Amino acid sequence: MPSTSLAFASQAEHRAWLETQCPLPEGFRVGSARIEFTPVEAPKPGRMNVALLAPDRPTPAFAAKFTRNAFPGAPVVVGRRRLAEPRLGAIVVNNKISNVGAPGGVEAAERICAEAARHLGIAPAEVLPSSTGVIGWRLPVDQLAGALPAAVASLQARTVLPAAEAIMTTDLYPKVRRAGLAGGSIVGIAKGAGMIEPSLATMLVFLLTDLDVPREELRTALDEAVEESFNDITVDSDTSTSDTVVLVSSGRRRAPAAREFGEALRRVCRDLSEDVVRNGEGVHHVVRIAVWGAPDRAAARAVGKAIANSPLVKCAVAGNDPNVGRLLAAVGKHAGAVGLPLDPVRLLVRMGGEILFEKGAMQLDPAKERRLVAHLSGAELYASRPPPAGLTFKPPSSFPAHERCVALEVDLGGGPGACEVLGADLTHEYVTENADYRS
Amino acid sequence: MPSTSLAFASQAEHRAWLETQCPLPEGFRVGSARIEFTPVEAPKPGRMNVALLAPDRPTPAFAAKFTRNAFPGAPVVVGRRRLAEPRLGAIVVNNKISNVGAPGGVEAAERICAEAARHLGIAPAEVLPSSTGVIGWRLPVDQLAGALPAAVASLQARTVLPAAEAIMTTDLYPKVRRAGLAGGSIVGIAKGAGMIEPSLATMLVFLLTDLDVPREELRTALDEAVEESFNDITVDSDTSTSDTVVLVSSGRRRAPAAREFGEALRRVCRDLSEDVVRNGEGVHHVVRIAVWGAPDRAAARAVGKAIANSPLVKCAVAGNDPNVGRLLAAVGKHAGAVGLPLDPVRLLVRMGGEILFEKGAMQLDPAKERRLVAHLSGAELYASRPPPAGLTFKPPSSFPAHERCVALEVDLGGGPGACEVLGADLTHEYVTENADYRS
Repeated sequence: MPSTSLAFASQAEHRAWLETQCPLPEGFRVGSARIEFTPVEAPKPGRMNVALLAPDRPTPAFAAKFTRNAFPGAPVVVGRRRLAEPRLGAIVVNNKISNVGAPGGVEAAERICAEAARHLGIAPAEVLPSSTGVIGWRLPVDQLAGALPAAVASLQARTVLPAAEAIMTTDLYPKVRRAGLAGGSIVGIAKGAGMIEPSLATMLVFLLTDLDVPREELRTALDEAVEESFNDITVDSDTSTSDTVVLVSSGRRRAPAAREFGEALRRVCRDLSEDVVRNGEGVHHVVRIAVWGAPDRAAARAVGKAIANSPLVKCAVAGNDPNVGRLLAAVGKHAGAVGLPLDPVRLLVRMGGEILFEKGAMQLDPAKERRLVAHLSGAELYASRPPPAGLTFKPPSSFPAHERCVALEVDLGGGPGACEVLGADLTHEYVTENADYRS
Repeated sequence: MPSTSLAFASQAEHRAWLETQCPLPEGFRVGSARIEFTPVEAPKPGRMNVALLAPDRPTPAFAAKFTRNAFPGAPVVVGRRRLAEPRLGAIVVNNKISNVGAPGGVEAAERICAEAARHLGIAPAEVLPSSTGVIGWRLPVDQLAGALPAAVASLQARTVLPAAEAIMTTDLYPKVRRAGLAGGSIVGIAKGAGMIEPSLATMLVFLLTDLDVPREELRTALDEAVEESFNDITVDSDTSTSDTVVLVSSGRRRAPAAREFGEALRRVCRDLSEDVVRNGEGVHHVVRIAVWGAPDRAAARAVGKAIANSPLVKCAVAGNDPNVGRLLAAVGKHAGAVGLPLDPVRLLVRMGGEILFEKGAMQLDPAKERRLVAHLSGAELYASRPPPAGLTFKPPSSFPAHERCVALEVDLGGGPGACEVLGADLTHEYVTENADYRS
């Protein structure tokens, strides 16, 4: 999953680069607005953003993929119905409350769609709703509806940034990636930092293009791109109830060959999924796990995920501690649980290019241990600081300015299946963030 | 999984109770010794214990179960062979290094067995080896062999405590549970605090009885007891490479009916597995998850484990934050991934007796939120203290003196399958412990 470089010297440099990713493809407008609200379920006032993304006129060329979680949110339920509609005219997104499992959730989502449609002069069934945030709480429908005129008034055709910023929750920075091709472009935005092990899609991803790729081709291209990007990442193994990826074309420019479009789409999706992991909740280290020699790609991915999701491996990485036996335990746990045949004599494991396991045994010595510690320390995005309050860890607000990874390689020695999985460590900042997410 | 009460007013009271669990069944001796060593792989000197548990004479009546991890440790490889031997004469256990994946591991384990056998006057194949600790490092075989005479000299028939203490690693206190029946007894000891989601057994458990239950009956009873105790718990979802449960009878007292013996064995195993979770690395809250209405017991257990292993649920519990939407997400993630049919309208979820989800929707309000916070706070074993060094959290050394749990109930509304799973939260102490376990 090689992705575009993210090595910046400063936050200002990152911001400048971000602007280069933001120009909207032809034929789209984007806007946003903010409301103040108090949830019905808990007496804590908060702020919520609503974003609008709309093609200039409703288009038949759109594709969407949703979570495999068995309790999908109301917007996902409505979104699945929209796939059968002839045209998509707008996407309306809010953060802070995910509208999952709340009483009357589908009605609330449809009401927002109808209000947005009225202001935009399109049909309610042409609006796709999308929500992210706390599960179980009710949307403040009246306040949201009241904010829609302001969101419509703010629509502009220059930049996707207002939407990328409006959909953030615990994200530290907006995630935007762009590919230019055939005189047009594909621009994608994503949000997502925790509850990330997508199983079909990541939390919220919106991809816009002006290239005139027809509906069925768009859907095939999205299937393929998602499979090799968002489905290969994990922050914390928790698959969200709201995962949604939407791709919309305004059809303004002639499409390139399907292969060329698919390649560009895959790159944008891979870049965005790397952004999601790199900005995962509390992430200090991104871990890139290349697995090969498996029976098939799915088996290779499952081994990579088993390593990436092991709490013990994640904590060791957080501590720059090359406790490499835990890698072996994680692979062995998974293989034992699913009955994957493994020959230890053919297994090869490397970290930072150093051989850890070969010919059926660990290959360790104190000098190698020191090199492994250096590899882990070198890949650290930031180190924990003693928290002023004693207990509550906060990530630094400055953007982590490099793209280094902990590099793991696992050769299972047994077949043509290969996959590259992106994971992350488990830190005090993750625990702090999620021990009181809603406050 | 109701277990014997553990509500103590002080550490001294706990210690006094522990003594009552420790009398050895007739026909056993236990001893231990300590060595200083420096691992070949890393220049950090440390201490290691070696423990001996032995029937007075080799016995055909023994049973053992081992990890399903596909990379079992050398002692597990040797232990599996021992199951076919006519008699067991001793168990030799070390902590600190697990002898997993290290070059020459099986030879090292066999050498320790041969040395122990020589000192005890039995056959090498009558000795079962067992090791726990760092994965990938080599056993200091010469030093261990040198300590065996001292361990043999310390053998005594009064108490199992020296072995229970010698096998500890990150455990905060020795774990001993006893059942008296039919004039004899079953006494079990366990170690294990991290890398705990047993898949056949927990890390190291040794069960001794003087009741004359024949070999095949012992093995059946152990299968059944393990299935309903150690296999129902999880601390961090990581299945160890060393999980081992051994049951040995000295045959000194007439056996009761098979059902009576099985019931007592199951109780000892359940009590020990609760001890393992309650003393899990960094655990602040034990979470007891009752699941019913599933197609079968395995399906119910899998749903319980999905909740217990969700990092987001675990962090919310750590923070006394009733972020109950995450329960729904965890159940839905699992059901979606394995294709378990779920009808939200029939689903019922409770925490601390409060209904969270019923009739297809969350049932939340601010007053209920306050009661849920009180339930979570009331089940807290201890709260984190600001660490003196700013980053390194240590659990208090005093024994957590209560047996309260976070009580979750999930009725899937669909079948006769039920299970009770024990899990734990995810805390700063767990991250600290595992970010530099080997130092």
